[in-house]
Amino acid sequence: MNKIIARNLAGFLELEPKKQIVFDGMKAKIEQTFLLHGLYPVDTPVLEHSEVLLAKAGGETEKQIYRFTKGDTDMCMRFDLTVPFAKYCAINQDKLLYPFRRYQIGKVYRGERAQKGRLREFYQCDVDIISEDASLYSEAECINIVSDVFKNLNIPVVIKISNRKILSGVLEFYNLNHISNQVLNLLDKKDKLELDKFLTELENLVGASALDGITRVMSAENIADLEKFEINNEQYNQGKEEIKHLFEILQTLNLNNRFTLDLSVIRGLDYYTGTIFEVNFANINQNSSISGGGRYDSLASNYTNKPLTGVGFSIGLSRIFDILDKNNLIEFSKQATSWVGIIPLGDSLTHCFEIANVLRKNHIPTEVLYFNKPFKKKMDHANKKGIPYIMVVGEDEQISGNYGLKNMKTGHVFEGELKEIIAIFRGEKVGN
Amino acid sequence: MNKIIARNLAGFLELEPKKQIVFDGMKAKIEQTFLLHGLYPVDTPVLEHSEVLLAKAGGETEKQIYRFTKGDTDMCMRFDLTVPFAKYCAINQDKLLYPFRRYQIGKVYRGERAQKGRLREFYQCDVDIISEDASLYSEAECINIVSDVFKNLNIPVVIKISNRKILSGVLEFYNLNHISNQVLNLLDKKDKLELDKFLTELENLVGASALDGITRVMSAENIADLEKFEINNEQYNQGKEEIKHLFEILQTLNLNNRFTLDLSVIRGLDYYTGTIFEVNFANINQNSSISGGGRYDSLASNYTNKPLTGVGFSIGLSRIFDILDKNNLIEFSKQATSWVGIIPLGDSLTHCFEIANVLRKNHIPTEVLYFNKPFKKKMDHANKKGIPYIMVVGEDEQISGNYGLKNMKTGHVFEGELKEIIAIFRGEKVGN
Repeated sequence: MNKIIARNLAGFLELEPKKQIVFDGMKAKIEQTFLLHGLYPVDTPVLEHSEVLLAKAGGETEKQIYRFTKGDTDMCMRFDLTVPFAKYCAINQDKLLYPFRRYQIGKVYRGERAQKGRLREFYQCDVDIISEDASLYSEAECINIVSDVFKNLNIPVVIKISNRKILSGVLEFYNLNHISNQVLNLLDKKDKLELDKFLTELENLVGASALDGITRVMSAENIADLEKFEINNEQYNQGKEEIKHLFEILQTLNLNNRFTLDLSVIRGLDYYTGTIFEVNFANINQNSSISGGGRYDSLASNYTNKPLTGVGFSIGLSRIFDILDKNNLIEFSKQATSWVGIIPLGDSLTHCFEIANVLRKNHIPTEVLYFNKPFKKKMDHANKKGIPYIMVVGEDEQISGNYGLKNMKTGHVFEGELKEIIAIFRGEKVGN
Repeated sequence: MNKIIARNLAGFLELEPKKQIVFDGMKAKIEQTFLLHGLYPVDTPVLEHSEVLLAKAGGETEKQIYRFTKGDTDMCMRFDLTVPFAKYCAINQDKLLYPFRRYQIGKVYRGERAQKGRLREFYQCDVDIISEDASLYSEAECINIVSDVFKNLNIPVVIKISNRKILSGVLEFYNLNHISNQVLNLLDKKDKLELDKFLTELENLVGASALDGITRVMSAENIADLEKFEINNEQYNQGKEEIKHLFEILQTLNLNNRFTLDLSVIRGLDYYTGTIFEVNFANINQNSSISGGGRYDSLASNYTNKPLTGVGFSIGLSRIFDILDKNNLIEFSKQATSWVGIIPLGDSLTHCFEIANVLRKNHIPTEVLYFNKPFKKKMDHANKKGIPYIMVVGEDEQISGNYGLKNMKTGHVFEGELKEIIAIFRGEKVGN
């Protein structure tokens, strides 16, 4: 029979077991952190009516989308978790308790050219806190959560915070409102252009005087700097007050200086209206962020008149994993999910199955190495897999009720009854 | 602005928060059970090359598939987790340690007519144990795992076990090999046809004598019955021996009689070659199964010459949830994921944020009710959400370091330092 070559689509991450275990561990830590913050889980479909999903999209977004028809139905795969959440809020608006604080972890799809490790299928981990009147405390809470996630992942990061109103005030001051989208788009590309080229393009767009003002504001290093500029309009002042207050709250939260003012943060999406933030690796040079978010004023306005303001952010889990992996910053030593491997001797196999079930009932992940290989091969298998503890069980053990538990790292063997062995693992936590 | 109607595609399950929490709890329990059995996680893409995914498919399967092209690429959404796993094994065949025991929990897609609650997007939870020579113990292990899953979900089920070789032997005995697929297809529809109609169709197909033989074998109630039939060919005898031995193993595993012989189990998929099994609700009348699996002899033969035999099964999580929900068998009382809600009094808000972070560090899911509403409204909110414990924190508490923790069910208030409050929750487990 002719064989078909087994292969994956370009841009679709599929991990071998030892990597998948680490990836799942990261995913589980993120979810645990979200649950520790008392967020609700939401799970929306991967496919949506195109009309619903593309209500707001256009241009680049639409080109990237996996869209097709089946029967009479025109449908799309989701390209983020925000639009489906807006739809979800519109559908469930009367069932939700506000503020509604949700998380969603799921795969999203962007059929862009797969270049330089760009992923076409990737996990996003989103949080949104929506209410009729989101306060600065919701912003502080989001930054607190995102900070907690990276602390729990043990990944050093910098959280760069800005407020869109400040830059809007600056543009207003220089009478650039009519081209503000163009300016923001250019500013957003700052890290992707050479500095000279960026400055020339910006000067061509806004003129020399505004260039000077904009670049000075963008390089402000702390809140006090904001007082130095001569700008004094409502937008600017509001933005300044908001960010001041936000920083006061954050300073009390013991975030270990993981956050900083950075007015060069733009965030491409046009629905942000106030605070915006981005998260970057502290120790890896990457010119794009691994998480970002901000405040918006009308989440679901394409679907409903109910005013839903909110603050949200998204963590690019697959991207983070991919970067860490490519920079050799992950140790893939641990392979097994079992804590205990039981190797049967002689006719004790069904007894081994029984013991394994007892250990599992006591929350100890266990496998029986029952396959038809010599003892030595089974030990090899357990070693290659990295199972941390081994029990060899034969008739003697079955009769005496005394078992040996070998720590494969130290070589030490603990001997005792099953309940004593179980006690050794008490307090350990199953899973990733 | 014109609003677009927010709606979901027919056949796509999207749950409101209180239901999502229960669903996620079930999913987490299944995953925990898989991990307790020491299985490896695998996560394959939702999209695949059509050529790869449809290597074996045809007929009905192909019609149901979401298939489309983007650029030059012809691709499909996965319709199960088995074919992607076969591809995964072919790609990673030299990296895997055999026996390779994996689980995967993910959504799959079938664009069939959405009728009678048929889902087009649904979660499957798959387990496969593959090796070069799968033994009966792998079959026993799969049945042990599936039994454990439903025990942990607290869902009473019956596991019906058959062996394909037995029926094949019967068909051989009656010289029906040339139409065996037709016969098996008809037998598989038994529960969907009226009995009279089924028997007439079967008689037309196989004749009166075979009809009698087949129906007698199919209604065998225990292993001993298998000795009563006059059939005595290699297939039949092999099947009989295998199922006998399997039942002997299972009897030692303390599965509380959740399994039974049922030779009317067919399993539509043509790749099963020996033991097959199906799981049905014990207490709900459903004419189709909620889980099923069996042994196969060539998992990845479309992609590789490496012989990979195995045993696997799939649990239809979305379907199970949907049936339980429609039969009003789920209590959706619990809404909150937080254990503790903190309500600030006066100017204590940032202190509340601090305390919340301390509780979270001690694995206690906590939220601060910081939104701008009067105290009573916040208590209402906490009650509606079902947050089990409330702390009201003002300046007094902040200064004294003494806090009150109110159990919202009993009304009892525990007073003490933060570390005493933390101690109350020790041993509780975060998550679902």
